[in-house]
Amino acid sequence: MAYYKDLREHIDVLEADGKLVRIKREINKDTELMPLVRWQLRGLPEEERKAFLFSNVVDAKGKRYDIPVLVASHAASKAVYALGMMCPEDKIVEKWTDAQLHPVPPRIVADGPVHEEVHRGEHLLEHGGLEEFPVPISTPGFDNAPYLTCANWITKDPDTGIRNMGNYRAMLKSPTRTGLSAHVPKHLRAHWEKCRKRGKPLPAAIVIGAMPAIGFTAATRLLGGIDELAVAGGIAGEPVELVKCKTVDIEVPATAEIVIEGEVPTDYMEREAPFGEFTGYMGRESLAMCFNVTCITHRKNPIYNAFISQFCPSESSKLQVIGNEAALYKFLRYDCGLPVLDVAFPDICASNRAYCVIKMKKENPLQAWQALHNAVGIDPSRKFVIAVDDDIDPRDFESVTWAMAYRVQPHRDVRTVEQLRVTLDPSVTPPSEGEGHAAPGAPSGSALLIDATRKWDYPPVSLPRKEFMERARQIWEEEGLPALNPRQPWYGYSLGYWTEENDEEAELAIRGEYKQTGEKLARQRIQM
Amino acid sequence: MAYYKDLREHIDVLEADGKLVRIKREINKDTELMPLVRWQLRGLPEEERKAFLFSNVVDAKGKRYDIPVLVASHAASKAVYALGMMCPEDKIVEKWTDAQLHPVPPRIVADGPVHEEVHRGEHLLEHGGLEEFPVPISTPGFDNAPYLTCANWITKDPDTGIRNMGNYRAMLKSPTRTGLSAHVPKHLRAHWEKCRKRGKPLPAAIVIGAMPAIGFTAATRLLGGIDELAVAGGIAGEPVELVKCKTVDIEVPATAEIVIEGEVPTDYMEREAPFGEFTGYMGRESLAMCFNVTCITHRKNPIYNAFISQFCPSESSKLQVIGNEAALYKFLRYDCGLPVLDVAFPDICASNRAYCVIKMKKENPLQAWQALHNAVGIDPSRKFVIAVDDDIDPRDFESVTWAMAYRVQPHRDVRTVEQLRVTLDPSVTPPSEGEGHAAPGAPSGSALLIDATRKWDYPPVSLPRKEFMERARQIWEEEGLPALNPRQPWYGYSLGYWTEENDEEAELAIRGEYKQTGEKLARQRIQM
Repeated sequence: MAYYKDLREHIDVLEADGKLVRIKREINKDTELMPLVRWQLRGLPEEERKAFLFSNVVDAKGKRYDIPVLVASHAASKAVYALGMMCPEDKIVEKWTDAQLHPVPPRIVADGPVHEEVHRGEHLLEHGGLEEFPVPISTPGFDNAPYLTCANWITKDPDTGIRNMGNYRAMLKSPTRTGLSAHVPKHLRAHWEKCRKRGKPLPAAIVIGAMPAIGFTAATRLLGGIDELAVAGGIAGEPVELVKCKTVDIEVPATAEIVIEGEVPTDYMEREAPFGEFTGYMGRESLAMCFNVTCITHRKNPIYNAFISQFCPSESSKLQVIGNEAALYKFLRYDCGLPVLDVAFPDICASNRAYCVIKMKKENPLQAWQALHNAVGIDPSRKFVIAVDDDIDPRDFESVTWAMAYRVQPHRDVRTVEQLRVTLDPSVTPPSEGEGHAAPGAPSGSALLIDATRKWDYPPVSLPRKEFMERARQIWEEEGLPALNPRQPWYGYSLGYWTEENDEEAELAIRGEYKQTGEKLARQRIQM
Repeated sequence: MAYYKDLREHIDVLEADGKLVRIKREINKDTELMPLVRWQLRGLPEEERKAFLFSNVVDAKGKRYDIPVLVASHAASKAVYALGMMCPEDKIVEKWTDAQLHPVPPRIVADGPVHEEVHRGEHLLEHGGLEEFPVPISTPGFDNAPYLTCANWITKDPDTGIRNMGNYRAMLKSPTRTGLSAHVPKHLRAHWEKCRKRGKPLPAAIVIGAMPAIGFTAATRLLGGIDELAVAGGIAGEPVELVKCKTVDIEVPATAEIVIEGEVPTDYMEREAPFGEFTGYMGRESLAMCFNVTCITHRKNPIYNAFISQFCPSESSKLQVIGNEAALYKFLRYDCGLPVLDVAFPDICASNRAYCVIKMKKENPLQAWQALHNAVGIDPSRKFVIAVDDDIDPRDFESVTWAMAYRVQPHRDVRTVEQLRVTLDPSVTPPSEGEGHAAPGAPSGSALLIDATRKWDYPPVSLPRKEFMERARQIWEEEGLPALNPRQPWYGYSLGYWTEENDEEAELAIRGEYKQTGEKLARQRIQM
């Protein structure tokens, strides 16, 4: 099957694969919708999490919407993400790496379904402007407005014309105005600064509801200056088709559900937030850009698409974990040339940005430190970066903990790196001081780099040798004991250090001849 | 029901409670027995783990034993441990604390079933000496002999006569001789040093198979100089009955299955190990004490009892985690007077000694550091000690990770403490240098102390307010969605910082009046 040409094909596949929950009862988008989807993140194991499609949505005032809301379609779980990538779960990193190494530039086409309905000029408000769409409140009780969450913003560098697509939230402020939270060092913010110097607004378009590769690339911190739409083409295996916007000089995916065109003024800013953040705390208000709508286009019977983000794990964190793992792996392995085998950001409580585990088969002692310093060098938002050996599973917290416990001496193997930029981290300064986003010159944080690789050969892992565990498993199954789900490691293996005498004594023991060893040790007795 | 008077009553309760697996087929104690029990630790969730009773045991040479082997009866899981404590799982710490605060000294009685059979003097070997018992090999392929693992050693201080009971492994070396691995700073080792200065051997008795309170207290690192048998009495709620040994001046539980009496020579030592260790690696050989048997007594049809230890989690680690949590909690709360609410040693890969999480409701900023320093001061074998606030679950790694991620700044909140004694830790020195146990003067390790408490008030947790999550759960259940197992936190709560204006805007939003906020923010617009 060719790659999804739009969100609708994607929904059909989610449903056919049992990954879609349809909610047909009336749901209040302001107080009920996101809490319902939130429950699967706080109460179900990952493999049971699905996308949710709400077809009967009302708001706090009782207004009824014709437009359905789709949540968590990109990344309710890794399995849902894999469906969006059209590959098995264990091929995601490979497909991501390949798409970055071999991007496919998009193609401009004359027209597309996203222009089936156009609201502009004096007709801009004929369906209510932004109020046409059932935008949910993400964290009812704390958020100060509904926010667009799956808003994929496209802008162009005013100097070079090079496009950027990024996922940034947008606070609803009126039917034709939103906030825009994109702070330094985001590309959109760099485009805005350039326009500001020219005394011009920044043209922009928001894409909502598209083939999943759009959301995947927009939500990922791609390293270097790659065009996200070309990487999306790399994932799709064919160019993404774009149409020109009606009121701004920007191209958008032709089959998107909804596109909002407009301008980001550069002569003023407004306060934005509080909004729930990935850190597990409400993000503080800060001075942010605005966006004034000039045109809304959408397909007939459009579908509104939202991410569920905030407290990790979330759809946002799953998206970032998978994309960022692939991006950092590609950087360390291909750009830095280090023997890195895997990179993991554990997707648990708030850890998807704070923690990073790098699995490697180091060829010399320096390489662990090279990997650690490169990882914070390319992205200073990391806080705990841990290098582990190739027998450790970086996605299994127990396995990483094992490496930390007895392959690390803190005074030798732990380094603190100061002056890192840690945005939205409430441990940097009290919330009453300064903004939520670290501005240049604002107080910064620090990171801990931990070399949890072995510094020399170790004795074997203290589990029975493989053949004894295999034989025992056979007995286990013959006895009808409960089904096993083996955890690594499940047998003892060599880590380089073991003497011939150790081996001889172990062999004597399993032959029932331990007394020979006892006699030898008596002969070697030390008088005190 | 009164407390178990012996191992047999305990087995009956384990079986009645569905916590005992009987293996009736022929099992080789040297290669099959421990690997079979090991599988539940590497392949089943904790709640499915049970004690195993093997009734048809042979050795590597085909020798058949009449004596059954019971493994994991003390602590296959926390639920199994709770059965041994005769209390609910959530009352274990309370019962442990109470037993330490109100110990019940043991009572000497004239005779007991442990003396039903006595092998001594010229009859010592009539049933084979130590070879009467089917002692399993714990880590076949690497261990250099069968070892007694559930060996509860009782000795007396030669100066004061004060008794000590501790669990130390014993390598089988001959039918009348074992190794004895008890290194500085163990009490038994201190007794031995005193005897050595007097030029006398140290009398000792090994208790195998008793009421579970014996194993619980022997395996726990009790802080201070408490008599383990009196704490066992505290757990039992009545004095433990003791009988005098036949050949040494030591008293042992009257209803024990097996007691091995003898002397620890002080004029020589022998090499002992390799033996699988809790660190996840084979413990290196080292110079250790020996034990020469003078008498073996046991009940009719005795039951041989073994711990499954080595790679954590194990029965040993579960025992140590539970007992050590209770001991450190009691010390920090009652002896140091700190507002500590809970202490957790996560029972995952090797972490039961390396990691320690202290939950507290600090009243001033110094108390977190007081707790951290006291925790390594009272026991220098800790490696990572983390203080967390009262909204963090110290037993939930995700919750602790959340605290680490955004309540810590490494340059401010992390301290390295050097010169700690970390025995058996292969990261201290290469295995080819020195012994596995750090002798005085040997290279030492270090620990990392982490204050992961909040340093000031934080904004609320970024989850929907409680009433919205509760309402959503009602919808979830009405829709027949999969059963939820809620994880903490599952709703947003205050952490001290939130302005009246934040509150007003959030209230407007959930009433559908977000545009009022949008208008206000437009009026407050900042010109650039």
